[in-house]
Amino acid sequence: MINFTFSGSVDSALTDERKNQLTQIHENLYNKTGKGSDFLGWLDWPSTVQPEFLERIEKTAASIRVKADVLVVIGIGGSYLGAKAVLSALSPYFEQGKKQTEVLFAGHQVSGEYLKQLLAYIEDKEVVVNVISKSGKTTEPALAFRFLKKFMEARYGEDAASRIIVTTDEEKGALLNLAKDNGYERFVVPDDVGGRYSVFTAVGLLPIAAAGFSIERLLAGAKDAEETYKGVDFEKNPAIRYAAVRHHLYTEGFTNEVSAIFEPKLSFVQEWWKQLFGESEGKEGKGIFPASVVFTTDLHSMGQYIQDGKRNLFETFLLVKEADEDMTVFEADEDGDELNYMAGITLQEFNHVAYRGTSEAHLSGGVPQLSLSIEKLDEFQLGHLLYFYMLTCAYSAYLLDINPFDQPGVEDYKNNIFKLLNKPGY
Amino acid sequence: MINFTFSGSVDSALTDERKNQLTQIHENLYNKTGKGSDFLGWLDWPSTVQPEFLERIEKTAASIRVKADVLVVIGIGGSYLGAKAVLSALSPYFEQGKKQTEVLFAGHQVSGEYLKQLLAYIEDKEVVVNVISKSGKTTEPALAFRFLKKFMEARYGEDAASRIIVTTDEEKGALLNLAKDNGYERFVVPDDVGGRYSVFTAVGLLPIAAAGFSIERLLAGAKDAEETYKGVDFEKNPAIRYAAVRHHLYTEGFTNEVSAIFEPKLSFVQEWWKQLFGESEGKEGKGIFPASVVFTTDLHSMGQYIQDGKRNLFETFLLVKEADEDMTVFEADEDGDELNYMAGITLQEFNHVAYRGTSEAHLSGGVPQLSLSIEKLDEFQLGHLLYFYMLTCAYSAYLLDINPFDQPGVEDYKNNIFKLLNKPGY
Repeated sequence: MINFTFSGSVDSALTDERKNQLTQIHENLYNKTGKGSDFLGWLDWPSTVQPEFLERIEKTAASIRVKADVLVVIGIGGSYLGAKAVLSALSPYFEQGKKQTEVLFAGHQVSGEYLKQLLAYIEDKEVVVNVISKSGKTTEPALAFRFLKKFMEARYGEDAASRIIVTTDEEKGALLNLAKDNGYERFVVPDDVGGRYSVFTAVGLLPIAAAGFSIERLLAGAKDAEETYKGVDFEKNPAIRYAAVRHHLYTEGFTNEVSAIFEPKLSFVQEWWKQLFGESEGKEGKGIFPASVVFTTDLHSMGQYIQDGKRNLFETFLLVKEADEDMTVFEADEDGDELNYMAGITLQEFNHVAYRGTSEAHLSGGVPQLSLSIEKLDEFQLGHLLYFYMLTCAYSAYLLDINPFDQPGVEDYKNNIFKLLNKPGY
Repeated sequence: MINFTFSGSVDSALTDERKNQLTQIHENLYNKTGKGSDFLGWLDWPSTVQPEFLERIEKTAASIRVKADVLVVIGIGGSYLGAKAVLSALSPYFEQGKKQTEVLFAGHQVSGEYLKQLLAYIEDKEVVVNVISKSGKTTEPALAFRFLKKFMEARYGEDAASRIIVTTDEEKGALLNLAKDNGYERFVVPDDVGGRYSVFTAVGLLPIAAAGFSIERLLAGAKDAEETYKGVDFEKNPAIRYAAVRHHLYTEGFTNEVSAIFEPKLSFVQEWWKQLFGESEGKEGKGIFPASVVFTTDLHSMGQYIQDGKRNLFETFLLVKEADEDMTVFEADEDGDELNYMAGITLQEFNHVAYRGTSEAHLSGGVPQLSLSIEKLDEFQLGHLLYFYMLTCAYSAYLLDINPFDQPGVEDYKNNIFKLLNKPGY
């Protein structure tokens, strides 16, 4: 269970009016009667996912691990960030100890230099490609796949088709047609799960499983969260309490939320979180602006602003209690660096102390302090955390009377680009 | 010269009153009579840096390249971000083609897992350490250096001293004493240059030179900027115009500045920029909140918020005209992905179009649009850009009547931590 704390009074955020609102939201959510309720497939996904589906993912992942040094995952937005967040959180920092198949991304941006160097890097390695796109028409992944498909066909000839896996719509779209014509293996992006809520579908699961992590444990954590947080208990449900507090702060003028971590491997969980909340809430001139910092690094950077700058922000720490690996400060013969007073303390203990010291300082600087804690960084805890965020995000957007599941604003720049490129039909 | 554009009227930001203010700031800056004027060493640094100093850096860097597979740079804040920003912007994405000496960082956070895995990674490699800390007492780098010093002594015995280089205060401090006692080579952090303004001192130059990049060109670019922007010409000086516009927007309620790039290698220039502006301006309850996005990646994430969310933000694009390496969209036999209409376009051209389409869309969504362009990503242009940012940051903070060069707020959490750890004297 996520441990949620708030420096102020949660009760003051849970007024009777807001409790009524939240009760109504709860009803709309679980009865699928709210805005955007066609996109609630993620809500009971962990408890209803079919074992045969997971077995198929595992089987494909196992074959990728056997035949590939590198899996190139092509996707952007929700087709990129879920897998990237989980893989970054669970992988070691340096190459040694990396799982046998390295997962690289493409089509998540349009740098010619990146793509060229990626193709050079994989030239002498065994490669499998997983291209992920609901419509198959999103420009960035489509562009990357055009280059990768050519690379694979030049490299493997007719065998290329057995090394390309497509995750796309079940019934329509350019990518589905390409997959059918070429006989690529296919997985489905469900119709009722939007991109930023798709980490537990094939979109996230295949790359995560291919890298050697346990998707069974990931989904077990998500299922645990689904069951733990489905009630409307205002005293006990941290998903509701977190949503209520951040909404309360927003109405009080705290319009920026700064996510703060002490474990750098969580930085892509923060990126995933920014997409989830920014894209769900940022509509109709409303929404909390999500930003992120990595401590203690950024205590020597954005820390000054957080302590003393404009008072329109609150800070939400994402904390991990136990470190997977740790080091203990030892006593030195010469104490020239004056650190012997810390002898016997582990670096993780230092981070916990740094959290307390930082939180107290920022609170006294006028920054409301929230925290979310998990026990450790593993598949189960991550699955639990990501589901928790999705649920609390739905509550949060509904509190603003906003559809948490659409993204009307991302069409505007796309249409402009198509016009500028003279795309047929624009 | 940086090309600066603004979607609104620069003239409306340059009222007579603000021009008077800026003229006064200009005078205070160059006559060193403003707040914090003891820390203006960076202002004429590029034009006054001594050839002998650069030769010594180059010589040490050359010897590092000969004897080290890995240079571990220990530092945090300004002792980390300058070198990191330049190295990230100039290095290739994948290992192939990396310069002979790999630069890794430590002491920029306190992850036990990171440090342990770093030590395992360098165990069978030849190593040199450059530890950077003005006082020598900042906890994070001091902790990392305690572990690295032990590693180096166990690995190299008496020769360890010849593989440790210290960049610190000239006259005092724990690290200086350690360096003297052990006979480490030393470089100086000048008294009149704060951490976030120190990239052109030994703090940034030694790691950048050790990685094989031209510090001569970097400084030539900075010198070019120093000379180009030192006048007070309101019509021509983009450093003053950018400062005036962002301040004007701040007074109009646009209190978040979102830096947006299309070249992912600039993401640590954004981190450096966030420290520079956040730490310089974020004081006394004032300051623009700096945030960053990487496009087109984040058009599928924070893009929705920028287009349609709360209208208290403006967007500043950092653009690069020419790509170093590029790829051209080719015509495919089957147009299953429907991209043949783009055949002949390079990916960099696509990014330029994406910039135009995005900027038009976000402007029509009510987000003021600013842009800063450089010609290409090389040492000269980067040196020019970083100096430009430092100068415009000084103008910006002075417009808020804030000392751009101190960081009083970062002491608060440090004192709390020392108390919690029972550090002698706290």
